[in-house]
Amino acid sequence: MASASSGRPTLEAVASVAGVSRATVSRVINGVPTVDPAIVDVVRRAIEDTGYVPNLAARSLVTRRTGSVALVVSEPPGHRSPLPFLERIFTDPYLGRVTAGAQEALRPRDVHLAIMPADPPAHDQVVRYVRQGHVDGVLLITSSADDPLPARLVGLGVPVVLSARITGGAMPGGVPAVDLDQAAGGRLAAEHLLATGRRRLAVVTGPTDAPFMRARLDAFVAAVTAAGLGRPAVADADFTRPGGEAAARRLLAGFPGVDGIFAGNDLMADGVSTALQSAGRRVPDDVAVVGFDDSSAAAQAHPPLTTVRQPVEDMARRMAELLLEGMGVREPGTDPGADAPDDAARPGRVVTFAPELVIRSSA
Amino acid sequence: MASASSGRPTLEAVASVAGVSRATVSRVINGVPTVDPAIVDVVRRAIEDTGYVPNLAARSLVTRRTGSVALVVSEPPGHRSPLPFLERIFTDPYLGRVTAGAQEALRPRDVHLAIMPADPPAHDQVVRYVRQGHVDGVLLITSSADDPLPARLVGLGVPVVLSARITGGAMPGGVPAVDLDQAAGGRLAAEHLLATGRRRLAVVTGPTDAPFMRARLDAFVAAVTAAGLGRPAVADADFTRPGGEAAARRLLAGFPGVDGIFAGNDLMADGVSTALQSAGRRVPDDVAVVGFDDSSAAAQAHPPLTTVRQPVEDMARRMAELLLEGMGVREPGTDPGADAPDDAARPGRVVTFAPELVIRSSA
Repeated sequence: MASASSGRPTLEAVASVAGVSRATVSRVINGVPTVDPAIVDVVRRAIEDTGYVPNLAARSLVTRRTGSVALVVSEPPGHRSPLPFLERIFTDPYLGRVTAGAQEALRPRDVHLAIMPADPPAHDQVVRYVRQGHVDGVLLITSSADDPLPARLVGLGVPVVLSARITGGAMPGGVPAVDLDQAAGGRLAAEHLLATGRRRLAVVTGPTDAPFMRARLDAFVAAVTAAGLGRPAVADADFTRPGGEAAARRLLAGFPGVDGIFAGNDLMADGVSTALQSAGRRVPDDVAVVGFDDSSAAAQAHPPLTTVRQPVEDMARRMAELLLEGMGVREPGTDPGADAPDDAARPGRVVTFAPELVIRSSA
Repeated sequence: MASASSGRPTLEAVASVAGVSRATVSRVINGVPTVDPAIVDVVRRAIEDTGYVPNLAARSLVTRRTGSVALVVSEPPGHRSPLPFLERIFTDPYLGRVTAGAQEALRPRDVHLAIMPADPPAHDQVVRYVRQGHVDGVLLITSSADDPLPARLVGLGVPVVLSARITGGAMPGGVPAVDLDQAAGGRLAAEHLLATGRRRLAVVTGPTDAPFMRARLDAFVAAVTAAGLGRPAVADADFTRPGGEAAARRLLAGFPGVDGIFAGNDLMADGVSTALQSAGRRVPDDVAVVGFDDSSAAAQAHPPLTTVRQPVEDMARRMAELLLEGMGVREPGTDPGADAPDDAARPGRVVTFAPELVIRSSA
């Protein structure tokens, strides 16, 4: 690492090159949001040109602000998916959509995003990194009420926004969250299959220790039974294409008359559709398939998937906005004293988005 | 954020709970690698139990060590892929494999990994974050000789290891890199298609501003022409399944007699295979398809893909090992004074891996 030397560029050199005061350079380095963006650009270029290296340690003693937030993707201990965690999160389009949505809110404020996959062996490392002060806040993707990581991060006192409402266990109340009305999504899938005349229904589900999957499944089953059709068949899978294929093959073996399948996400729906067609069933003529997410996988499937849209980008942008508010970062150009405190800045706010049915060709 | 208060746990409290000296607690917090792992565990638990928060600022003034490295995935300005950067990197199994491989080397040393997607709007943010000292080193995934980010990061003086040998432009020499013998991979694909009797060959290529793709393509074309068959047809795509499908449809329209296709990666090969089968061609009976990578997409395809294996996990583990050596972190339990300087620690080392042909069903 670089060590101090007499030839090292100074803050004064940057100020001189930029034609601004030392105090202005300092404000830019410290991410003070009231500096004119044009001035910020000039100072940044001067920093580049001089090769000045701000002293993080001295700086963070004063401001405790890094200009960076973490997107932590947590997997709780004992999660029962057979597919390796990293392969799962890095092949599902979900994480790219979350990142893109969060960046829509973070980039205008020049806040940097670092992504931290956190399977159980990494939980301690993520806690240490956040505790050491390397980020100003955390966007936390978690899908289990039994996950200990959310409570640990919240306990550090750093602003945290969750990707789902989590209650019970070690989780303190009052943590902001953005969620989808998952039950409404399960109902949309059931109503569409019923409205298009399907009567022999089945579900391909992901692990139901994830509350979002449990809610989708329960609402689907409730809507189907409320229509007088009896409980749909259920086949377990793991949110992946191959898992969806295997589940569909098991369904066909045990329930060959199935005419409509709801899959808990688009990747499984794509696998279900592939397996059905390999078995000689036409989609949707013989069997209708409804997915969940409306990710790129839905539009790219053959045939393109009818699916329940989860507005992941919008939800992630809202998460990032709530986090910025929790960190005290305001919209550029707004006067922090001008408003009464925003609803969103109140602890414990949960923003719930509504799902939508997107009709393509598979159902 | 937490502020100092009279009730805040102290280093002394941690030492007392752990039953060790203050100096030992300090060594654990600072990641000094010579502390016995059992002691490290005891001290970590005491830190948890007391709720002690190490003062990063004061700590890093002394050690300049964070216990974390960045995996930066760079996209250069002007890259011509039509697919959004984040969707591309987060749906290709490559990034999950890199992360998994790097963690094999980093976890035994308890070094944390933060992933930073860096399209051009994020280049400045990544440079700032690294310059501020939030990581001890950088694993840099880049695929273009024109990418300015590698030289900028190397210029900060922080240890950097590249995912490919990069020369020319603003890049200083002497930066360690791990690469694949890409040309050998292109030759393997050509030789297999020729050896199995294919004579009307074509390539579906990713953007050739990526040197790795250019090398695969040129070597394939050279091997085919050296066999006296004339130049194979080439169709452009973008490393995605839908791109591979579209390219295969164009190939079939202009070159209906094609009997063997080499695709520049497995996702495109999967798309090629799908499009061929949709057009009524049997794979491999009518047209053989060879992919590149041997990612999970190859084994999951229908039929499973014959492909050129890139040992991504091994390559990423080697990158992380080179980085740890550059950072002065040694294998736990080894005496840093016991050896002559390792080859690997010498600047400019480039480690080249050999590809292998994996024969499944598509060719």
